[in-house]
Amino acid sequence: MAKNKTRNKHKHYKLPAPGTSPGLYTVDENALKPIITLHTYNAQSYTKQELEKIDDFNKLTENKDFNYWIDIKGLGDVTIFEKLNSQLHVNHLVLEDITSSYQRPKLEEYDTDNYVFAVSRHLYLNGDENLCNEQISFILTPHTLITFQENYEDCFNPVRKRLEVGKGNIRLGGSSYLMYAVMDVIVDHYFTLLNYWGEGLDAIEDRLYEKPDKRIMFDTQLIKRELISIRRVAWPERDKLNDILRSESSLISSQTKTYVRDAYDHCIQIIDLIESLKEIASSNIDMNLSIVSNRMNEIMKVLTIMSSIFIPLTFIAGIYGMNFSREDPVTGKVLLQNMPELYYPHGYMYTLLIMGAIAVLHVIYFWRKGWFK
Amino acid sequence: MAKNKTRNKHKHYKLPAPGTSPGLYTVDENALKPIITLHTYNAQSYTKQELEKIDDFNKLTENKDFNYWIDIKGLGDVTIFEKLNSQLHVNHLVLEDITSSYQRPKLEEYDTDNYVFAVSRHLYLNGDENLCNEQISFILTPHTLITFQENYEDCFNPVRKRLEVGKGNIRLGGSSYLMYAVMDVIVDHYFTLLNYWGEGLDAIEDRLYEKPDKRIMFDTQLIKRELISIRRVAWPERDKLNDILRSESSLISSQTKTYVRDAYDHCIQIIDLIESLKEIASSNIDMNLSIVSNRMNEIMKVLTIMSSIFIPLTFIAGIYGMNFSREDPVTGKVLLQNMPELYYPHGYMYTLLIMGAIAVLHVIYFWRKGWFK
Amino acid sequence: MAKNKTRNKHKHYKLPAPGTSPGLYTVDENALKPIITLHTYNAQSYTKQELEKIDDFNKLTENKDFNYWIDIKGLGDVTIFEKLNSQLHVNHLVLEDITSSYQRPKLEEYDTDNYVFAVSRHLYLNGDENLCNEQISFILTPHTLITFQENYEDCFNPVRKRLEVGKGNIRLGGSSYLMYAVMDVIVDHYFTLLNYWGEGLDAIEDRLYEKPDKRIMFDTQLIKRELISIRRVAWPERDKLNDILRSESSLISSQTKTYVRDAYDHCIQIIDLIESLKEIASSNIDMNLSIVSNRMNEIMKVLTIMSSIFIPLTFIAGIYGMNFSREDPVTGKVLLQNMPELYYPHGYMYTLLIMGAIAVLHVIYFWRKGWFK
Amino acid sequence: MAKNKTRNKHKHYKLPAPGTSPGLYTVDENALKPIITLHTYNAQSYTKQELEKIDDFNKLTENKDFNYWIDIKGLGDVTIFEKLNSQLHVNHLVLEDITSSYQRPKLEEYDTDNYVFAVSRHLYLNGDENLCNEQISFILTPHTLITFQENYEDCFNPVRKRLEVGKGNIRLGGSSYLMYAVMDVIVDHYFTLLNYWGEGLDAIEDRLYEKPDKRIMFDTQLIKRELISIRRVAWPERDKLNDILRSESSLISSQTKTYVRDAYDHCIQIIDLIESLKEIASSNIDMNLSIVSNRMNEIMKVLTIMSSIFIPLTFIAGIYGMNFSREDPVTGKVLLQNMPELYYPHGYMYTLLIMGAIAVLHVIYFWRKGWFK
Amino acid sequence: MAKNKTRNKHKHYKLPAPGTSPGLYTVDENALKPIITLHTYNAQSYTKQELEKIDDFNKLTENKDFNYWIDIKGLGDVTIFEKLNSQLHVNHLVLEDITSSYQRPKLEEYDTDNYVFAVSRHLYLNGDENLCNEQISFILTPHTLITFQENYEDCFNPVRKRLEVGKGNIRLGGSSYLMYAVMDVIVDHYFTLLNYWGEGLDAIEDRLYEKPDKRIMFDTQLIKRELISIRRVAWPERDKLNDILRSESSLISSQTKTYVRDAYDHCIQIIDLIESLKEIASSNIDMNLSIVSNRMNEIMKVLTIMSSIFIPLTFIAGIYGMNFSREDPVTGKVLLQNMPELYYPHGYMYTLLIMGAIAVLHVIYFWRKGWFK
Repeated sequence: MAKNKTRNKHKHYKLPAPGTSPGLYTVDENALKPIITLHTYNAQSYTKQELEKIDDFNKLTENKDFNYWIDIKGLGDVTIFEKLNSQLHVNHLVLEDITSSYQRPKLEEYDTDNYVFAVSRHLYLNGDENLCNEQISFILTPHTLITFQENYEDCFNPVRKRLEVGKGNIRLGGSSYLMYAVMDVIVDHYFTLLNYWGEGLDAIEDRLYEKPDKRIMFDTQLIKRELISIRRVAWPERDKLNDILRSESSLISSQTKTYVRDAYDHCIQIIDLIESLKEIASSNIDMNLSIVSNRMNEIMKVLTIMSSIFIPLTFIAGIYGMNFSREDPVTGKVLLQNMPELYYPHGYMYTLLIMGAIAVLHVIYFWRKGWFK
Repeated sequence: MAKNKTRNKHKHYKLPAPGTSPGLYTVDENALKPIITLHTYNAQSYTKQELEKIDDFNKLTENKDFNYWIDIKGLGDVTIFEKLNSQLHVNHLVLEDITSSYQRPKLEEYDTDNYVFAVSRHLYLNGDENLCNEQISFILTPHTLITFQENYEDCFNPVRKRLEVGKGNIRLGGSSYLMYAVMDVIVDHYFTLLNYWGEGLDAIEDRLYEKPDKRIMFDTQLIKRELISIRRVAWPERDKLNDILRSESSLISSQTKTYVRDAYDHCIQIIDLIESLKEIASSNIDMNLSIVSNRMNEIMKVLTIMSSIFIPLTFIAGIYGMNFSREDPVTGKVLLQNMPELYYPHGYMYTLLIMGAIAVLHVIYFWRKGWFK
Repeated sequence: MAKNKTRNKHKHYKLPAPGTSPGLYTVDENALKPIITLHTYNAQSYTKQELEKIDDFNKLTENKDFNYWIDIKGLGDVTIFEKLNSQLHVNHLVLEDITSSYQRPKLEEYDTDNYVFAVSRHLYLNGDENLCNEQISFILTPHTLITFQENYEDCFNPVRKRLEVGKGNIRLGGSSYLMYAVMDVIVDHYFTLLNYWGEGLDAIEDRLYEKPDKRIMFDTQLIKRELISIRRVAWPERDKLNDILRSESSLISSQTKTYVRDAYDHCIQIIDLIESLKEIASSNIDMNLSIVSNRMNEIMKVLTIMSSIFIPLTFIAGIYGMNFSREDPVTGKVLLQNMPELYYPHGYMYTLLIMGAIAVLHVIYFWRKGWFK
Repeated sequence: MAKNKTRNKHKHYKLPAPGTSPGLYTVDENALKPIITLHTYNAQSYTKQELEKIDDFNKLTENKDFNYWIDIKGLGDVTIFEKLNSQLHVNHLVLEDITSSYQRPKLEEYDTDNYVFAVSRHLYLNGDENLCNEQISFILTPHTLITFQENYEDCFNPVRKRLEVGKGNIRLGGSSYLMYAVMDVIVDHYFTLLNYWGEGLDAIEDRLYEKPDKRIMFDTQLIKRELISIRRVAWPERDKLNDILRSESSLISSQTKTYVRDAYDHCIQIIDLIESLKEIASSNIDMNLSIVSNRMNEIMKVLTIMSSIFIPLTFIAGIYGMNFSREDPVTGKVLLQNMPELYYPHGYMYTLLIMGAIAVLHVIYFWRKGWFK
Repeated sequence: MAKNKTRNKHKHYKLPAPGTSPGLYTVDENALKPIITLHTYNAQSYTKQELEKIDDFNKLTENKDFNYWIDIKGLGDVTIFEKLNSQLHVNHLVLEDITSSYQRPKLEEYDTDNYVFAVSRHLYLNGDENLCNEQISFILTPHTLITFQENYEDCFNPVRKRLEVGKGNIRLGGSSYLMYAVMDVIVDHYFTLLNYWGEGLDAIEDRLYEKPDKRIMFDTQLIKRELISIRRVAWPERDKLNDILRSESSLISSQTKTYVRDAYDHCIQIIDLIESLKEIASSNIDMNLSIVSNRMNEIMKVLTIMSSIFIPLTFIAGIYGMNFSREDPVTGKVLLQNMPELYYPHGYMYTLLIMGAIAVLHVIYFWRKGWFK
């Protein structure tokens, strides 16, 4: 994992300039030109159509024998939002939430205007293995689901395929079921991410057991942070799903709620799994610290053993390297008390034996202390 | 405990491919062929029967003078699930929960179709002492309990024996009591596991007090992780038992609830015990860290004592090992100021005495500092 | 405190064999033969009687002018439990709770059979200063309190004395007051324990400030664990007392509840005190770690000061201990460039002065760095 | 701060002997003789009177045109409590709470006997800067406030002055307002303490940044403990004030509640401030640990630099200090291979140059590693 | 960031002298002379007026066709507060809250006097990059908003501009919308601060990865503390906004509440972001500790490698530096056993070879241990 992956992690927030009027949605200059796809379907048929622009939301979806899914990728056209407001009476604050970059997952019901607004967050790893955190906004009206997405990244493919094939409940369940289906794809993707990080932690653990290196700490912290990111999304996602379950809006069918309960269970499992992976990450960090201090102990042992054995021996050698003289070279006086050992016939051998004995005693001492293990 | 025990701990989750249609249960190719056992019993009689396959659930259990327990081990036959759906009106989502690999313990009541769905998780150590985490699913209808299990591991033996013997409430309490009895066996097994790990922690503690080694950290972390695993099961298990207690379904008799309260108490004790063992594990880790740094202190003391004593002595020996000359060998000039000590009659002895004194002073100094304790 | 005190701390749980029929109370072979004491009292009189066995609970307590306290120590007689079931209609699960070894403090009301079941846990230090955790079970019927205890350890003495003397409310308050009085004795005993451990922590702290030794960590962890044990009892005890306060059973008089509120306050104080002592224990551990690393710093300083001063000096001595020759002993060629210092009249003295200067500079350097403080 | 300040911190609790009859208030032998002050006041007048003893509470306060404050300092007279019981029907348990030494702040309403009992805890630093934790008990009846205090420490002075001056609401607000006023003085005093400790932490932080010493850890832990002590008081204090706010007793006027809401806000601010100071204390401890290990790093660097530079040089000097002989002094055989460097005309100089080069290379190496910063 | 930034962080609290009468607002001698600005506006028009002083609040705002905003900067004029009390019946306690320096964000409704009191806290960095925490108080009456601020720091500029321009809802939404608009500006400013600290943490992280220095710990702790400060404000801010949402006061229009819900969402995002930044700060600290101990390991390795290689070699050199004599210079006795190696023709060369071999073996040993990585 590249080092620069950790950079800019918490810069995902486009800050509103303090004091700007709330409900004033602005279209960023760099915003992508919208790609609009209209899916028209009922139990019998399904058609897909690319639209250049939208003139009248109400007209587009006027045949009530069908359900509609308007999938808008790229937010770079302010007229869409103006029409949402004038034709579908979507609140300005909702439009601001769609265009501003960071909203937590949430559900808002606008009963008087008969629509529901919801936000999911799509997390995925991009080509550089950086975690992207993209907002998917939903507007649900009786026959129509409108989804908004800031860029062209495609995560709806599985849902589109199921719509085409028409298998299962997807074409029968109405717009609220379709919204559930999209949200479910997003939530299921969290499992893929967690699995990826789980394997990353396993790999780190393997390195820990086999060959601990300095990058272990960095890599673990990296995954820990990404777990913090996903947790920040998973908790409000859970609340959102719970809000759907308890919603009394007529727009959300009771059959859909049965399925949402399933997604809610998944979300709880995800939170469980996040906590579990976080504990594994922490345990890796603890283990690493323990390994580092064990290694320190070992390094110190080597130093201490070497020093303790040789320093006294070197001292002894130093003693007999002294130049105390047996006779004064000037006066010629014999000094018999000065270093008589030097003149013993076996002085050298005895000295070497004593040195050897000292070394052996040291080795035994350290052996007994268990320092060689 | 083997090192590779920690591997793959969090890979227990078979991930649903994001975007697959919910409620689409799939039978894994590698799924085991089901072994079906039918237990027919009432207060007076009990018979056990191995079935090849099930043709009609309703027919099988049509005699309402008896209660039935259909025990299905191995999920490799899709027709069973199709018949559950067509004959007993079991929801597709429930069937998906049975076949998909990881569900948290939970209770779901389907009042309109008059059945209850529940999940327990059977934890056990396999032959390699790895913790296995298997799902047991329950479908409870008025006279019948159906249990599902992915593999052939047998944990129902004690219940079967009690059914055969007919002692206690087991044959009288109806299907809900039987479901309770199976769940109770599973929960009671958690005590066995906790006891096993508790003994593991005791053994680690003994090593800690007697001969701390490097594996202590690894082994403690291992048990800590397994405690995390069981905690992840015990908390939703507690919630599930509580849900049973507060259930208003007619399928769960009030007598059964009295017993479930008992299991609920056990579950709280288990959670208590898990927390307590986790604290003991943490305390072992703390103790280990403390021991490691105490040992480091000791190593450093040995090094410092040896160095501090001998380095100055070696220096003195070095002084008198210098070759400053008493007379210039070339010019023959006598240099009386150069190292006159070397030519004192008792220079050597005095030097040795001074060295001894320095060593003794050092020893006294370190003794006073308490470094020899 | 002896090292072996920590052993087997969490082995207090007698595990039910998984799958045994619930409500099947078993009498352990090693269970003590019961000592039964019957206390008969009202406002005017009090008599105490040792019973060999109990034939009929109802007969024993038939005179409704008196209140009765049947105190059973030792659970080794299965007939008592059979009679409790047949004569007082005590539930099998309750009997199992009495005979099985570990129940958390709790209150269970059996309104239809007009009795209340409660559990307290008596904590005390035995002769070896090990913490014992004994279960006291209560069955409260309109005129009678029955208490059960596994061994002969006597903790009811203060209550018995108050019964004899008849002072205060003890003889007037009915059976529920007596139950409260026993529970209160047990809870008050927790204060004694906490005081004991508090003094232990104080003693450890004194050692910490005066002469930190290696056992500090062990001893603190020991007390910390015992605090964990008592906390595990105190929390459910609090819940139990709260359940009594909110109980609507006619068996518990409102006057008794006034007193239970007092015990409830004590219990909250105990929990407070436990948390406070735990924080003191943690603070002792932190302090110890800090002391250990300060000591390490000091050891390293001694080593570094000694080495830094003497290693350069020894090097200089080594220089002038080299044998570069002033004349080739073989050819007799004079080599004036080789170590001319050795032949300076004051070479030795200058060398010693330079060495002294280096040492002084080092000392000043370390002094400035504050290493001598 | 003196070292012995930390001693006996948690010995504030006078333990009731387990099993003593509840509601039996005892007057300690060492209890101080009570000093009783009667304040009689209404909107127009205020008189203060020292009483020797109290004969009849009802008679003393019979003129309902006035409010009364009976301030009792010292609990050494049992007759006061007897009269409280007989004349004002104060419950025995309340009297026990007044005389026993440690009660958490609380409010108890005795509606049938028309009085309210409350406890506050007065925290202050005594002359030795030790934290004292004294109990102030309140009995509030329609026209009278009675306060109890164990010793003569005076904290009511500001309230007394306001009573004398008659400014503000103090004489008009009735007894409940007076009780509030006293409690408010006590709570406001907590701010003074927190400010004192806050300055202590600031001073420690200054030492940390300028000259970290070994006592930092001790001093910080000391303040941390005192923060724990005050937190243990502040939380139940908050609950008590909340209980007053929600009390439906006619004794507490709704005007008083407006003011109590203010005190409640202060109490929340105090808790906020405690948490904030605790975090600062923890951050000081973390910082200290970091400084200690940085210093260790530095010490080790000095040692390693000195050793790495001089050990090889000393080795080289050792080489040329060897005595391999150019000719056998006995046989006179010339050994030209033995240490010919010693007889090179410039051997000494080259050796010194090589030594210098090695030293310079080491210095460059460590410089590059950033060890000199 | 300057070191002295951390000083005095928790001295923001002006302590009320314990025992001063509550509701006695005092005007500090150093308080700034108020600058009063009156904004008069409705959908059509907007005028701004600087006032010297306020004579009659009611008269000033008597034309009910307009809404009024009275912006008071500087609290140094006691007459304003007296008139608020006499003319608008604002409670003394509210006035005390406005003038006293620290109140947590809160909402208080005074229904009988038909006004609402609210507090926000404006956080900003002053010129020295110190975090300032200023109180903004609001009094909301049917047609008028009065804001109070202690100093002249201007944070209302964006709101004033929107009032002038008249764009959006600002002139139409009534006083409650204006109050919301001001609060929203304050809350939005928190994002700016968090962004600033987020970038600070990023910069620290960069230093951590590239060149860890000693100030990392200090700088991180600094930001951590500022995060603690803002968290202490954000939580009660959230509660306040929630109180507004649930308020039933007629002064707060339901349209305003729609917008407040938006601000409430922002506030939750802020709390999220704070927690996330705190975790990043902690992770930086952990990383730093890990880096410090890794560096220690490295230092020790260098020392150990150098010592282990050269200490034995120096010892060998010391051996052959000993002066055991081949013949007694005095007696002339030949001592053939003393250091015969010195007189071998190739003794010196063999010695050097052995030394080289030892060094190489050491290097191989450390290489294998992975110490050179």
